Order: sequence, then C-alpha cells, then structure tokens
Amino acid sequence: MNFFNDLADFSIAEIKELITLARRLEKKPEPRALEGKVLAMLFLSPSLRTLISFQSAMARMGGGTFVISPEMSIHGLESRSGIVMDGVAAEHIREAVPVIASYGDAIGIRAFAKRENLGDDLSDGEFRELTSLVDTPYINMESAINHPCQSLADWKTMDDLGIPARNGKFVLSWTWHPRQMPFAVPAATVHMAALRGMDVTVLRPEGFELPDIVMDKARQAATISGGSVTESDNRSSTMQGSHVIYANSWASVHHYGDRQAEDKIKPELRDWCIDEPWFENAANDCRFMHCLPVRRGVSVTDSVLDGPRSVVITEARNRMLVQMALLHQMLSRS
Amino acid sequence: MNFFNDLADFSIAEIKELITLARRLEKKPEPRALEGKVLAMLFLSPSLRTLISFQSAMARMGGGTFVISPEMSIHGLESRSGIVMDGVAAEHIREAVPVIASYGDAIGIRAFAKRENLGDDLSDGEFRELTSLVDTPYINMESAINHPCQSLADWKTMDDLGIPARNGKFVLSWTWHPRQMPFAVPAATVHMAALRGMDVTVLRPEGFELPDIVMDKARQAATISGGSVTESDNRSSTMQGSHVIYANSWASVHHYGDRQAEDKIKPELRDWCIDEPWFENAANDCRFMHCLPVRRGVSVTDSVLDGPRSVVITEARNRMLVQMALLHQMLSRS
Amino acid sequence: MNFFNDLADFSIAEIKELITLARRLEKKPEPRALEGKVLAMLFLSPSLRTLISFQSAMARMGGGTFVISPEMSIHGLESRSGIVMDGVAAEHIREAVPVIASYGDAIGIRAFAKRENLGDDLSDGEFRELTSLVDTPYINMESAINHPCQSLADWKTMDDLGIPARNGKFVLSWTWHPRQMPFAVPAATVHMAALRGMDVTVLRPEGFELPDIVMDKARQAATISGGSVTESDNRSSTMQGSHVIYANSWASVHHYGDRQAEDKIKPELRDWCIDEPWFENAANDCRFMHCLPVRRGVSVTDSVLDGPRSVVITEARNRMLVQMALLHQMLSRS
Repeated sequence: MNFFNDLADFSIAEIKELITLARRLEKKPEPRALEGKVLAMLFLSPSLRTLISFQSAMARMGGGTFVISPEMSIHGLESRSGIVMDGVAAEHIREAVPVIASYGDAIGIRAFAKRENLGDDLSDGEFRELTSLVDTPYINMESAINHPCQSLADWKTMDDLGIPARNGKFVLSWTWHPRQMPFAVPAATVHMAALRGMDVTVLRPEGFELPDIVMDKARQAATISGGSVTESDNRSSTMQGSHVIYANSWASVHHYGDRQAEDKIKPELRDWCIDEPWFENAANDCRFMHCLPVRRGVSVTDSVLDGPRSVVITEARNRMLVQMALLHQMLSRS
Repeated sequence: MNFFNDLADFSIAEIKELITLARRLEKKPEPRALEGKVLAMLFLSPSLRTLISFQSAMARMGGGTFVISPEMSIHGLESRSGIVMDGVAAEHIREAVPVIASYGDAIGIRAFAKRENLGDDLSDGEFRELTSLVDTPYINMESAINHPCQSLADWKTMDDLGIPARNGKFVLSWTWHPRQMPFAVPAATVHMAALRGMDVTVLRPEGFELPDIVMDKARQAATISGGSVTESDNRSSTMQGSHVIYANSWASVHHYGDRQAEDKIKPELRDWCIDEPWFENAANDCRFMHCLPVRRGVSVTDSVLDGPRSVVITEARNRMLVQMALLHQMLSRS
Repeated sequence: MNFFNDLADFSIAEIKELITLARRLEKKPEPRALEGKVLAMLFLSPSLRTLISFQSAMARMGGGTFVISPEMSIHGLESRSGIVMDGVAAEHIREAVPVIASYGDAIGIRAFAKRENLGDDLSDGEFRELTSLVDTPYINMESAINHPCQSLADWKTMDDLGIPARNGKFVLSWTWHPRQMPFAVPAATVHMAALRGMDVTVLRPEGFELPDIVMDKARQAATISGGSVTESDNRSSTMQGSHVIYANSWASVHHYGDRQAEDKIKPELRDWCIDEPWFENAANDCRFMHCLPVRRGVSVTDSVLDGPRSVVITEARNRMLVQMALLHQMLSRS
C-alpha cells in the first residue's frame, strides 16, 4: 500500500481485510512488527485523536514517530510558488516536506480546508500539492475533503456493533455549531456508509445541502455496494427506523468562507441539537456516532452523549486499531 | 497495580519492593520488558522532570509514550458539567480523557491545585473527577494534594544515602518564594517521611502551618511506622541533630487563593532562605533535599545548593528509576 | 566516543569510519542496536531537521528520545550566575541541565549564537558552559560557532556524489538574507571542506569576511589534509572550475549584533542571490549545497534550487544517516 488517501481507492474486500487485521492486532499484539520503522507526521492543522492514536499505533508495533507542526518551529512555512521569501517564513514547503518525508518510512499529513475557495477545497488542492512533494507512502490524516482514517474506524465500529450493512439505515445529520465547519468528515462519512451498502440519508436544514460532487461520489459508491443515498430536511421521517445517527456540522455551500453571512441564517437552527426525542421513531437500539470533538449542549445533549446510544469513545479507540492495521500493511513488508 | 495515587494506599513492604525493583532495573536493564506498551500522559499543568523522566522510563523498557497538554491543541478542554459549549473550548474532558486513556495501557495525569477553594484542593476533587473517567490503570503525576512519584523517589534517595529511617530526623522547612505555592509536595513529603519511620518536624513561620488534614494523615502514618510528626517555628532547635532538611514553599491556609493578602505577610519572611548557618546544630552530614525547580538566592543559597549537602540532582534522577519500577509492576504483567 | 562537538576533534580516518558506518546502517538496518537507550535533547534554539533527524535516528535503532525546549515549560530557564531568582524564571540551568542529562544516555544541545558579543560567540562560551554541567556523552546540535552534524552529513553527501576531495574545488558563498545570521554553519563548513582536502574559497562581498579565528582554523585543517583555503569577492574567477557552491549567509564582523548598521550596507548586495549565470565557468556538474532552511528568491533562485545541481534534500537526509552512525558509536557499546 503506497498511499491511504480515500476509501474510494480500495475495494470493499480490501477494506474488510484491513478491519480483520485490526481485530487480529488487537487480540494478538505484534510488538515488533514495525521495529526500526518511523512514521513522519506533518500537522498543518490541530489534532488530538489523530496525533496520539498514530503515536500509540506505531509504538504498539515497535516503531517510532515524530511530529512537525508550524507552531513548533519559528521558521514558518511558505507555500506560495515563485515568491521572494523576504518576510517571516524562512522555509518553503518545497524543501520542508521532502525533508520531513525523507526521515520517515511513510508520512501522514493533516491540512484542513482553507475555506477560502470552495472549488480548491473540494478538489483537495493543497493536500495533492503536499503529497506531490513526497516519494514515500503517505496517509491522509484529514484533508480539505477527506478523513479516511475516521471512516475506516467508523466502518469497524459499526461492524463490531452488528449494525447491518445491507438494509442498515444510516442518517448523517447536520447539527448546530458556532463555527463554520469543513466538509471533510461529512464527505468521508456519507461515502463510507454508502460503500458499506447502507441506506444513507443526509439530514440537514435547507441551505446546508452537501456539495453535488460529494453526493455524486457517495451515490456512485452506493451503486457498487447496493446501498442508496438520499437527502432530507425532515427529521421525523428520516429518523424512522434508523440504526445510526451520525452527527456533524458543515458549512453552507451558499456562504462558503463567509462566516458572517452564514451566521445570519444559523441562529434559527439552534434546535438542530440532537436530543432523545429525535430517536422516537428510530430503531430501538439506534446508535449515536460522532468523530469528536463534539460540543455538548450545542450539537448534542448530555443525555444522548452520556447515554447508552453513544459510541463515540469506541469510534475513537477504533481509530488506533484500524491505523495499526493500515501501518502494518504499509510498512511491515517494506 | 491498578493505580498509583498515594503512598498511603500501599504497605511499607510494597513500597520497599518498588525501591528494590528500581535498583534492579538500574543495574540490570530490561529493554524489552514493556515492548508494545504505551503510557498516555495528560498534563493539565506544566512539567519538566515528570514529563521526561516518564518518557525516558518507558523508552528504557521498550515502551512508548504520548503527551497531551491543553496548549498543544487549539480545541481547548471544557470541564464544567451541564454546560452549553458555545465558546472557545471545542472538547469536553468527558470525551477527551476516556479517549486519551483508551490509547494507552495506563494513563498519567497532572493537574495542579486550582488554588480557588481550599476544601476542593485538599479533597483532590479535580484529580478524582479526571480519574473517574478512565478505566485503565492511572498514575498521579502531581495533583492538588499529592505527588507520590516524588515521594517514592525521595524515599529511595534517603535509602541510597544511608539516612536512617528509625530515629532519622527529617525537617520539612517552608522557604520564601515569590509565588503562592500548592500543598502537593509538602503534604506528600511529610507523609512519606513519617511513613518511613522518621522523626519529622515541619518547620515554618507562624501563619504557614500545614492544613490539619495533612498533619493528621502524616501522624497516622507515624503511628504505623513508629515515627513521629511535630511542628515548630524555631529553626535552631528544629535543626538540632537533623539528618535531612527538605525545602519547600506553600501557601498560607489563612490566605489561600488570595495572593495579595499573603504577599502582605511575606516580605518579612525573606530570611527563610536556607543558608549554611542553618546547619550549625545539624548532624554533620545533614543533607539538603528539594523536589525542584528551586529558586536560587530565594529559597536556598547558591553555596548550599552547589555544596556537598545537596542531593537534588540525585532525587531527580531517582524519579526516573522508581517510575521504571512502578511502570514495570503496572504494565509488564498485563 | 564521549562527545561530538567539532570535526577538529577527530582524525580524518575516524570521520571516514563514521561515514562508512552510516552507509552500512542505511543498507543493513540494526533496529535493536540501541534498544533501551535514550537520547536527551535540549533545544535552546528552534529546529526542524535536527530535531526530527535525531528522533528518527534513535527510533530506527530501537532507542528513544525526549525533548526539552524553554517554550515547553512555563518554568523558564535562568542562566546567570549568583542571581536572586525573584522573577519569572523558576529554574536555573545548573539544576535543569544535569537533570535532563541524567535521564539520557547522551545529551544533544542546541544553543545558537546570542549575537551580542563577538568574542563570546567565537569562543562558544554558552555551549561550553552548558556541557560543563553534564557528565554524560554530549552532541553539539549547533552552537554559536559549530554545527558538526551538518558538516559530517555534507562530507558524506560529497563522497556519495563522487565530488573529488583532493583537487576538488569548493566555494563557500555568502548570500543575501534579510536577517543577521550566525557564523556556525559557515565556520563548520569551511573547516570541513578544508579537512576533506579540498581547495576552498570563501566568496563574499567586502565587509563580510569570516572572522580570522575561523579562517585560521580552516587553514590549519588544510595543512593536515593537503587542501587550501583562500577568500575572494570576485564571483567569476572564484566559480571557475568549481565542483560545489555551498550557499550561506552570515553577519558582518564589523557590525556584529548591530543589525541596523548591517542593514545599511546590505541593500546593494541583493544580487548575491545564486542564479544559473553564476555557474557559467563552473565545472559542468557543479553542485549547489545548502544546510536549509533556505529563502527562495533571496539566497538562491527557484531555478537553481529546483534544478539538477541542487542536492539540498540529499544533504538533509544524510543528517539522519550520519547521526545514526554517531549515536551507534556513542551508545551501542556502553
């Protein structure tokens, strides 16, 4: 495996193989599988789970990690082309990224959406530019439009919980959030659930439709797997019989990068905070999922998050396990 | 061992066993004892020695570590209950702590006294709340009222130096400090010295008595071990025949959390800076101990700190060694 | 090997042995050579390559690392002697450095030139003071006047590329830079190239001569190796037949520590930005070297840096490899 950037790059069989390997490594640790191997991590955006789940994953297999983030170094990182570097930034990504990669056997990169230009973010321009600079295997640790490690962990979580794939009803719901959030997690999630063969509904208020390119990709995955993808702004009908509600927040495509304009339409959406009554018509054991961090009392109530529906800690723990499988496949044979 | 929170939770025999193991691991390293094991570390307060002595301890036995501190992540950590998370903090400790713990085989947590409410700090409320969120083994890396790793290292230091336990005279002395300091180290220290069976005197100016609950706990330990615990504001009589003076600074219980009020009574206590004349009546080879960091010329003079009495570097080095023993007991069998 | 501070402390045979070992470790990894060993790293100055190349080097041989930098700890580090520590800094280097060293099997220290007093920096006063506090093996990770790890990597880079030692023509060229830069890299570089037996010319505009002590040391190395050391401000004649141009920037000795005065003479030196025409009379395959970070469009043009002459990424990668050799020699036998 030379890169892990998008679940769409893998067959369903390959994804299932990764999940099987993750389970095996949990039950039967291989503390020397990656001895002498090193994972480089470049965090151009902040991280809690991703950082430490990868650090732990490598350590559990005898390997090492190192981390670079711009705030660590006073050099600053310049990314524009053809520039005269006369200002604060003392180093260009054209040197920094290949050097960082050269000290690792693989490199993981996180670079959130810049939320300046919708087209740039939807095409994952920055992440593509960064990975074009490295010739080692690379891992997407969340880019403008993808978060494949989260999706792989969520897939495993649903498998472990016995949530049905075929005929399983998956609701991806927009929730209120004080900030304008990127499309990475919702785009990865709707695609993952569709590829898993589920009947997926994107539940969101008017104005918060997911971008067409995101929906089209998910629908294509559903075609392969036998699932389906629809959207709705009707909570009650959408939640009917659902097995999972996956909460997230994302920007309005109509106001992308313009938080002030978006803020004008958001106050009346405050009730998009997932609460127990939402589950009235859902399947009895309908689960609540979220990639974390989650804002209590804003996106979801304490009672749902602290109750038996919530599997958010399990999802987070599965991040480490699926990443162990991923790193094992990527590095143990090289 | 499922937790290491307080020396009071262990028998004297168990403590001695840890020290014996620390010595064995120093002489005969076990570089694979903890291979594949990971220690999570959550630092809600700053650290130098604790951070790196644990990192080194795990690495020396083939294990790994990772660290989370609030300043690393822009998410911010909320800890209040029932709050609507509408502000800066994007993550609640109710998610963050279990997730961090789930990536480790054990978790160490540091959370200094908040110095807002004396009762809260004396009951170690925050640390108890944090550890109630984890189901892995945990280690107290200094809480509001305890610092058991420091105490274990200090115990070993005194054993190594041949400082007598029974009939050994231990002086815990308050020293001047420009800031209002917590009770964690003095509380742990007076208890440790008493439990070791020493005759302990808390030497402090009027107004800087240790809290009753701290003194009572130490007296109880003395009952078990055959030691004693008293207090005094008379340097000369207290230092008479003493084998150890352990310097520290702590808040006045009368002005807890009110630094301005405390500052009014402190200027005339500037001479509580340990100097060579203090040792006039002490045992000839009376040692100077301090947990570090120490302020030169403020809490102790250069001549004492740089002279042969000082064992502060040895104490710090012993932090790593006793923590190796602790981690070995906690993780090598699991 | 008890310290690695200056290539001048080693014979040419010893240096060649390190390079041979670096090549062997690259081809035939030894993932357990340093198991249970720990490298302490104290960064009093910022770092990208040095930090992560050492972290990776240790991990590749089964060892561990930890890092302390002043911004990590709120304690602050005081370094003045005889001071009353009544201010912000809560810890003195006289405690901090021995403690940090005591947790490692070796310590690496980075402390850039203070650029306050030329004599202090040329005598490497701060680095000498810091290393006088430790009794473990130590490594210079760039001090006021040296950067031996960079020089060892550059030596290997030239060997790997088949750049001739005897009769090889090496140009160390000053380049424009918006800031006042230290002498560490140019001093180490001119000495390294001379010790390798090359014919070295320091190319610099008037006013930017290297300090006499730096030139004298390089000339002494040339005497041993059969190389030569000269200086010039004539680009065209200097570049004639050259095999390597090594770009760097450094302060004017005439305005050391006085950036404003230096800035007055610098604007007209803007054309000291290495561009393709500089290579007109050079050897056909003349290489461009730089220790990084490099400012594009300021010190060197994009076309040179992105073209086939540039070996800057190779130099950086060799940092890790020679440091593996160094750590192997220092730690594997202990």
